[in-house]
Amino acid sequence: MASLGDIGLSAAINLLSAFVFLVAFAILRIQPINDRVYFPKWYMKGLRSSPLHARAFVSKFVNLDFTSYVKFLNWMPAALQMPEPELIDHAGLDSAVYLRIYLLGLKIFAPIAFLAFSVMVPVNWTNNTLNRSNLTYSSIDKLSISNIPLGSNREYQLVATMRLHFLASQRRRSDQFTVIVRNVPPDADESVSELVEHFFLVNHPDHYLTHQVVYNAKKLSSLVAMKKKMQNWLDYYQLKHSRNQSARPTKRWLTLYLQTGFLGLCGSKVDAMDFYNTEIEKLSKEIELERDKVMQNPKSIMPAAFVSFRTRWGAAVCAQTQQTKNPTIWLTEWAPEPRDVYWDNMSIPYVSLTIRRLIIFVAFFFLTFFFMIPIAFVQSLANIEGIEKAAPFLKPFIEIKFIKSLIQGFLPGIALKLFLIFLPTILMIMSKFEGFISLSGLERRAATRYYIFQFINVFLGSIITGTAFQQLDKFIHQSANEIPKTIGVSIPMKATFFITYIMVDGWAGCAGEILRLKPLIFFHLKNFFLVKTDKDREEAMDPGTIGFNTGEPQIQLYFLLGLVYAVVTPFLLPYIIVFFGFAYVVYRHQIINVYNQEYESAAAFWPDVHGRIIFALVISQLLLMGLMSTKEAANSTPLLIALPVLTIWFHIFCKGRYEPAFIRHPLQEAMMKDTLERTREPNFNLKEFLQNAYIHPVFKGDEDNDSEVMSEGWEQEPAVVQTKRQSKRSTPLPSKRSGSVSPSSPSLHES
Amino acid sequence: MASLGDIGLSAAINLLSAFVFLVAFAILRIQPINDRVYFPKWYMKGLRSSPLHARAFVSKFVNLDFTSYVKFLNWMPAALQMPEPELIDHAGLDSAVYLRIYLLGLKIFAPIAFLAFSVMVPVNWTNNTLNRSNLTYSSIDKLSISNIPLGSNREYQLVATMRLHFLASQRRRSDQFTVIVRNVPPDADESVSELVEHFFLVNHPDHYLTHQVVYNAKKLSSLVAMKKKMQNWLDYYQLKHSRNQSARPTKRWLTLYLQTGFLGLCGSKVDAMDFYNTEIEKLSKEIELERDKVMQNPKSIMPAAFVSFRTRWGAAVCAQTQQTKNPTIWLTEWAPEPRDVYWDNMSIPYVSLTIRRLIIFVAFFFLTFFFMIPIAFVQSLANIEGIEKAAPFLKPFIEIKFIKSLIQGFLPGIALKLFLIFLPTILMIMSKFEGFISLSGLERRAATRYYIFQFINVFLGSIITGTAFQQLDKFIHQSANEIPKTIGVSIPMKATFFITYIMVDGWAGCAGEILRLKPLIFFHLKNFFLVKTDKDREEAMDPGTIGFNTGEPQIQLYFLLGLVYAVVTPFLLPYIIVFFGFAYVVYRHQIINVYNQEYESAAAFWPDVHGRIIFALVISQLLLMGLMSTKEAANSTPLLIALPVLTIWFHIFCKGRYEPAFIRHPLQEAMMKDTLERTREPNFNLKEFLQNAYIHPVFKGDEDNDSEVMSEGWEQEPAVVQTKRQSKRSTPLPSKRSGSVSPSSPSLHES
Repeated sequence: MASLGDIGLSAAINLLSAFVFLVAFAILRIQPINDRVYFPKWYMKGLRSSPLHARAFVSKFVNLDFTSYVKFLNWMPAALQMPEPELIDHAGLDSAVYLRIYLLGLKIFAPIAFLAFSVMVPVNWTNNTLNRSNLTYSSIDKLSISNIPLGSNREYQLVATMRLHFLASQRRRSDQFTVIVRNVPPDADESVSELVEHFFLVNHPDHYLTHQVVYNAKKLSSLVAMKKKMQNWLDYYQLKHSRNQSARPTKRWLTLYLQTGFLGLCGSKVDAMDFYNTEIEKLSKEIELERDKVMQNPKSIMPAAFVSFRTRWGAAVCAQTQQTKNPTIWLTEWAPEPRDVYWDNMSIPYVSLTIRRLIIFVAFFFLTFFFMIPIAFVQSLANIEGIEKAAPFLKPFIEIKFIKSLIQGFLPGIALKLFLIFLPTILMIMSKFEGFISLSGLERRAATRYYIFQFINVFLGSIITGTAFQQLDKFIHQSANEIPKTIGVSIPMKATFFITYIMVDGWAGCAGEILRLKPLIFFHLKNFFLVKTDKDREEAMDPGTIGFNTGEPQIQLYFLLGLVYAVVTPFLLPYIIVFFGFAYVVYRHQIINVYNQEYESAAAFWPDVHGRIIFALVISQLLLMGLMSTKEAANSTPLLIALPVLTIWFHIFCKGRYEPAFIRHPLQEAMMKDTLERTREPNFNLKEFLQNAYIHPVFKGDEDNDSEVMSEGWEQEPAVVQTKRQSKRSTPLPSKRSGSVSPSSPSLHES
Repeated sequence: MASLGDIGLSAAINLLSAFVFLVAFAILRIQPINDRVYFPKWYMKGLRSSPLHARAFVSKFVNLDFTSYVKFLNWMPAALQMPEPELIDHAGLDSAVYLRIYLLGLKIFAPIAFLAFSVMVPVNWTNNTLNRSNLTYSSIDKLSISNIPLGSNREYQLVATMRLHFLASQRRRSDQFTVIVRNVPPDADESVSELVEHFFLVNHPDHYLTHQVVYNAKKLSSLVAMKKKMQNWLDYYQLKHSRNQSARPTKRWLTLYLQTGFLGLCGSKVDAMDFYNTEIEKLSKEIELERDKVMQNPKSIMPAAFVSFRTRWGAAVCAQTQQTKNPTIWLTEWAPEPRDVYWDNMSIPYVSLTIRRLIIFVAFFFLTFFFMIPIAFVQSLANIEGIEKAAPFLKPFIEIKFIKSLIQGFLPGIALKLFLIFLPTILMIMSKFEGFISLSGLERRAATRYYIFQFINVFLGSIITGTAFQQLDKFIHQSANEIPKTIGVSIPMKATFFITYIMVDGWAGCAGEILRLKPLIFFHLKNFFLVKTDKDREEAMDPGTIGFNTGEPQIQLYFLLGLVYAVVTPFLLPYIIVFFGFAYVVYRHQIINVYNQEYESAAAFWPDVHGRIIFALVISQLLLMGLMSTKEAANSTPLLIALPVLTIWFHIFCKGRYEPAFIRHPLQEAMMKDTLERTREPNFNLKEFLQNAYIHPVFKGDEDNDSEVMSEGWEQEPAVVQTKRQSKRSTPLPSKRSGSVSPSSPSLHES
C-alpha cells in the first residue's frame, strides 16, 4: 500500500490539472466566439441568437467585460439553481433522472464514509496489523445493508413515481395512442397495409383508428442527404456571388466531383452555380422516382406498421396483449417516440432475431475474453520493421533515434487505446445487429455490455492482473470458495491504483468534459474552413448527447469500487464522494447548457441502474466473505451468507414492486386521461393529429412536396371492413373510408 | 462394474416380481367384488353400476367365467385401443399430455439406443480399456443433440397446438369469461364488492359484466363437513332400523361422541336416530348463523373477487394488462377452473407473498441439504434403549432376540423411509404456504421442488455418495472444472446401481401401481367395517389422481439417467426404454379406468416438462465434458462447450416460441369465439350462466337452501355506476342494476 504522502501528491497533481481545466473553461466560456460551443442547447431551442451580429467587432470574439472574469466560478451555483421540475421541462426526464444517479451516489457513500471514518479508521489505527475486528465489519455491514437497499428502494420508488407523473402530465402525444406491430405475416392476396387494417378492425373493433406502414427508405434517404449537400453548396456559391456580383464563381470539375462525392478526372472549369442547379434538378427527379418506387412497390413496405387507436386505453390494451395463437407474428409493443425510432430494424423476423441474439452473445463473450489477441497481433505488426517494410519511403524518417523510440514506446499502447476508444461504437453496432427498434433500447443494451466489459477487464483485470482469459482460466481451475478469497486478498493492495484511477478517469475526466476541448477545436476549425452558411454553423455546433451508453457504466464502476472498498479501505471513499459531487455539478451544467436531447424514454433505464447497484452490493459482500475467511474472523463467514441472500431477495421484491412502472401501462391511468381529454376537447380530430406522426424522417425532411405525397398515399389505403377476404383481382379500386365515421363493428358479427 | 450375469439375475428377479404383480392384477381385476377398485372412474362417470345387485350370489363376488382367465392380459391392448381424442374427452387434456411424456421418452431413447448399440457397443467391445474413441462420442452427440432438441421441439409444438385446439374447441365455460382480481385495496367508504364493481365499470366500461366476491368460509366449511358426517350416520341407523323394525338402534354416548369427533365420558345408552336428528338440527342452525355472519360481516369478505366479462376478449384483455399505477394492487390473472381454485390463498397481500417466497426458499434449501440431521436425531432416539425407557412395559417383548435385531435393523431405515413418504406432502404444504391460488399451480411447484430434491439427493447423492451437505462442501472446495470431472469419472461405476434402481423403482413400481394393493385392501376393509350407505361405498373407492407432483419428477429422473448414460453405459438404455413402454401402458390403463380428474389445466405443466428435459441434457453434456477431459480425448472438450450453449439457446428459442401458448391469451382466438357464439345464440343470458360459477364449494354443497342465499346475496350488490364516490351513510339503499342494460359509459365521461 502506498503511503499517504504518495497519494497526497497524486491527488495534488490531479486536483491541479482539474483546476487548470476549470479555469480554462471559466475563461473560454465567457468569450462570445465560443458561445456556440458552450451554450448550444439554448441555440437549438431558439432561445439564444448568435452574438456575432450585435456587438462591436472586437467584442464579437473576445469578452472585454473584466468583471465577468472575477466571477469565473459562478457557473457552478448557476448550474445548481435550476429546480428539478424546470430541468425536466428543459432537458427531459431522462437527463433529470440521469443526474439523480450521481445524487444517489452521494446519498449512499456520504453516510457510509461517516461511519467508516468514525468507527473503522480508529480501529485500524489502533490495530497495527491488517486484521480487523469482527464488530466493525458487522456494524458497517448493517449500515450498508440497511442504507443501500433502503436508499435504493426509496430512489426506485421516487423514480418510478417521477416517471408515472411525467407520463401522466404530458400533453397529448402521438406515441400515447400508438403501438408498433411487427412480423406481419406475408399474405398473397392483401398488401401489408390492408392486412394490418383488417386485422385490427376485426380484433380491436372499438378502438382501432388508423395505421402507418413502414417503408424501406434506405436508398431514398441517402439521395435526400446528397441533395441537401448540393443545396448547401449552391447556397454557398450564391452567397459568394451576391457579395461579388462581377464574376460568377467557377470551379474545376475535379473539385466539384470531389465535393459532391463523385469521382472524376476532368480539369476544365465550369460555372459552379449552373452545375449545382442542374445536379439538384437531376437529384430531385431521382428522388421523385425513388419515392414513387418506394410508395408503389409493395416490396418496399416492411412487414411492420404503427397502429394508432382512438384511445390511450385501446393502445395500452393492444401493447400488452398477445394478438394471435402464434406468438412470433403480429408482435405488438408500445411505440417509441417518433425521434426514438431506429428505422432499420423494423423488419427482422422472429427466428432471425433469436439467431442474432445467439451470435451476439458468442461475439461479446469473445470480445470480452479474447480482445487482447487481435490487439497483440496488430501490435506485433506495428513495429519498426513492419512499417519500414510497408512504407520504405518513411525509412530515413523513422530511423531518427528519437522518433524510433517514440514509435516503439507508443505504438503498442496506441493500438489498445484505439480499441478502447472504439469499444462503445463496437458495442452499439452489436446492439444494432441484435435488432432493437429504439435508440433508447440500443443504448441501454450497449451500456449493459460496456459495464460487463469494464467489470471483467478493468475491475477484475486490475485486481487479478492478467487478461480476462487468464482470469477465466484461473477461475475454472480454482474452487468456488477460493475465488472470493483470491480476489478478496488482493483487493486491499489495489486501493492506491483505484484511487489514482478515480482521480484521472473521474476528476480529470469530468473537468475535461466541461472544457469540451474536442468540440471547441472542431467548431473553430469548421468555422474557419468549412462553414459556408448559417445552416452549416448550426451543424458545426455538435452539442453531443448525454451518452448514456458510456456514462452510466462509468458511474456504476465507481459504485462498485465504493461498495467494495467501503469496509476494506475506507480512505477511498472521499475520492468517490468528491467524484460524485463534482460530476453532479458538471453534468448538471452540461445538461442545462450543452447536450442535445436525442430522445425521451421517461427514465426507462432506471431498472438497469438499480440492478447494477445491487450487483455491485452482492459482489462486495462476496468479496468481503472471501477476505474474512482468510483472516481470523473466518467463523463469521457462514453468517454473512445471509447478506447476499437478503440482497437478492430485496432486488426481486423491488423488481416486482416497481419495474412494472417501466414496462407496462396501467389501464386506469389511460382511462383517466382519455376521459379528461374527451370532456375537454370533444371535437378534437385525433386522426389528423396522428396522421403523419410516424413517417420516416426522410419523408418529413422537406415538407413542401413530401407531405402531399404521403397524405395521398395515406388516403389511398382501403378502408371498408372487408370481412371476407377478397383477392386483389376482384377489388381493383377499394372504396375510401372517411375518418369521422367509425367502423361498424356489429356488421362484423352478423356477416 | 457388475458383470452382465449379475445384472441379468437382478433383472430376472425384478421381471419375475413384476410378472407376479401383473398376474395378480389380471386375476383380481376380473373379480366383481373388486370392480370398484379397478374401475372407479367409470362409476364416478355414472357409466358403470355396481355388479352386486344383478348377479347370482357367488358370481357377485367371484368371477366364474373361466374363459376370461385365459385372456388375462387383454387389458393391455384395451388400454392402448382408446384413440387420443376420445381419451382427451374421457379424462381431460392434462392426462392425455401426461401420457405423452412417456411416449416422448420412447421417442428419444429408442433411436439413441439403436445408434448406441450399432456404433458404441462394437467400439467398446473391440477396445478392451475404458478409453473410447473420439468418433463415437461425436456421432452419438450429434444424434442426441439433433434428436432431442428436434424431438422436443416438435413435441412442444404439438402440445402447444393440442392445448390451443383444446381451449378453442371447448364449449362455453365460466372460466373463459372470468378473471380473478386480488389485492383489492381497502377502502373506508365502500365494501369490497362495491369497490370492485366501480373499478371495473370505470376501467372496462364496455366489457365488465358481473363479479363474485370471495368469502372467508373456513369455519363454515368445517361445520358443513361435520353436518355431512352426522347425516351419514343418521342414514346408516335409519337403514339399520328399516331392516330390523323391532328395535330402534341405540348407542352409548361415548361412542357417539367419538364417532362425531366430540370428546365425552358418558356411558348411558341413547336412541341413536334421535341423537343424530337433534345434532343435525343444532348444526343446521349453527350453519345458518355462520352463513349469515359470513354473508353480512364485511370482514369475512376477502379482498379478492372473480370478475366476469361480457366477452372472452374483455377477459383476455383484463387478464393480461396492468390495472393501476401501483403494480401490487388490483392484480388480475386468468381465473382457474372453479374446481381448480385453492380458496385459502386468496387474500395474501403482495409484501407478505414476497416474504413467504423468501422463507420457503430458505426452508427448501435447508430441507434439501440438511434433511439428514433431524432424521439422524430421530434415529439416535429410536434405538432399543430409548424405546425401553419410554415404554418399559414393552421390555420383555423387545428383548426377544429376533425382534431386537429386527428393530435395530429396520428402525433407522424406517425414519428415513417415513420422511421420504411424507416428502411430497411436505412440499405441497410449502407450496400452499407460498400462496398459489390454484391446485394445478401448487402441484407444478411441488413437482419442481421434488425434482430438485431427487436430482441432488438421489442422482448426485448416489454418484458422489454422501449427504447433500457433504456434496455442497465438496463442490465449494473444488474448482469449477474439477466438479464435472469428479462426477463424470464416478458415473460409469454407478451404472449397475441405477439399473437396479430402475428395475425396483420403475418396473416393480409400475406393476405395483396397477395392482393398487393399498386401495384394494383399504376398500375391502372399509367395505366390511365402515361402509354404511351407498354414499360411503362411493367414497370408499378412493380412485386417486394422476399425482403430477410425484409422478412427473420420477419420469424426469429417468430422462436424466438415460441422457447421462446414453454415451457412457448404453446398456442402461434398454431398461429405461422398457420402463417408458411399460409405464405408458400401465398409466394409460389407469387413466382410462381408475384415476379421478381433479382439475383441468389444459397441459399447463408442459413448459416445466420441457425445461427439465433440457436441464437433463445440459447436465449430461457437462458430465460428458468432465469425463472426456479425464480420458485421452481431452482436446475435444473445448469444442464440446458449443453443445450446452446451443442447447440453452434452443431452450430460449422454444420458450419464446411456444411458452406464450401456456401463459397468455391471444385476442384473435377470443374474438373469433365471441363472434361465433354471438351469431349462434344472440339471446343467451351470459350473466345467469356465470352467476354461480365461482362460489365457494361450501355454499354449493347442499343446493336446496344455499343457492337461494347466494343469489339473494348476489342481488343485493349495488349496481348503478357511481362515478363520484359516495359514503355509505348517504346511500343507504343502492339501486339495483338490471343485467340486460349495459352500463352507459358516456355518462361516465360527461360527469
